[in-house]
Amino acid sequence: MTQRIFLSPQDCEAAFYEALEKADLDAMMAVWADDEEIVCVHPGGPRLVGLEAVREAWRRVFQGGARLSVRIGNVLAMQSMMMATHCVHEFIGIKGEARPAAPVVATNVYVRSGNGWKLLLHHSSTSPKVEQGADKGSAGARPKVLH
Amino acid sequence: MTQRIFLSPQDCEAAFYEALEKADLDAMMAVWADDEEIVCVHPGGPRLVGLEAVREAWRRVFQGGARLSVRIGNVLAMQSMMMATHCVHEFIGIKGEARPAAPVVATNVYVRSGNGWKLLLHHSSTSPKVEQGADKGSAGARPKVLH
Repeated sequence: MTQRIFLSPQDCEAAFYEALEKADLDAMMAVWADDEEIVCVHPGGPRLVGLEAVREAWRRVFQGGARLSVRIGNVLAMQSMMMATHCVHEFIGIKGEARPAAPVVATNVYVRSGNGWKLLLHHSSTSPKVEQGADKGSAGARPKVLH
Repeated sequence: MTQRIFLSPQDCEAAFYEALEKADLDAMMAVWADDEEIVCVHPGGPRLVGLEAVREAWRRVFQGGARLSVRIGNVLAMQSMMMATHCVHEFIGIKGEARPAAPVVATNVYVRSGNGWKLLLHHSSTSPKVEQGADKGSAGARPKVLH
C-alpha cells in the first residue's frame, strides 16, 4: 500500500481524482482513512462500507485501465479542525470520445488523522443538469472555516 | 421561522425526518444551518445550494401534504467537535400503500453553530439494494468520535 500524507483536505481530494483518472488502485486506496466505517457510494450504486468493499468496487471500475478524464468544478467546502466537507461537480468523460462529460454531484468528507487528512466518505450521484458558473463555488475557492 | 436548538446531531437528524414525515416546511427549514452554502440533493436531482433553493424544493415535495412514512436504519456516524457526518438508509413508503419502502442512501452533514447543531448538507440517492443487518451501524449506534 502506498503511504502518502496529505496536509489538507484539498491535497487529499486532488490525489483522489488523480487516482481516478489514472485508474491507479493503490493510489486510490492511499487516500482513504484506515477505518472500517469508510463509505463509498458510486452513482446509482449501493452504499459500500469498509476498506474491502470499497477497494473491490474501485478495482472493478479500474479494470478497463485509464480511460476517464475528470474535471472538478463548483467546489463548496466547509472545514473544521478535524473534519471537512466538500461538495463538487465532477465532469467525467471517456478519453478519446467527444461526447459531453456526464455531470455527477459528489460529496466528499475528510477527516484529520495522525497521518494527515484522509477520505472518510464519497457519495456520488448523477445530476440531471449542472449550470456551470450559475452555482456558487469554484475549484480554486477557499474553504469556509468553522471557528 | 420556527426556532429550535438541537443539542446534538442526532437531535437535529430526528427533527429532519420528523419534518419530512409531517410535510412541515417550517420545521424542515428550522433544522438547516443559516448559511448560504447549505446543500441539498434529492434522489436523481441536481445539487441545490442556499436556503431559498432548498426551501423551494421541499415546498414542492410537501405540497401534497403528509403522506410519507420514513424509517431510518444502518446509521454510520462520525463526529468531531464542530462537524458530524451521518450516513443512513432511509426506508420511505407512501402512507396507506402496502408496497415495500424505497431504499435511499443519505449522507447528512451537521455543523455546530452558536444555536446548536444544524444541517449543512443532505445528499440522497436511490440504492439498488439494501441488505438490512448485513450492513454495519444501527439507528441506536453511538457515533464514532474523533479526538
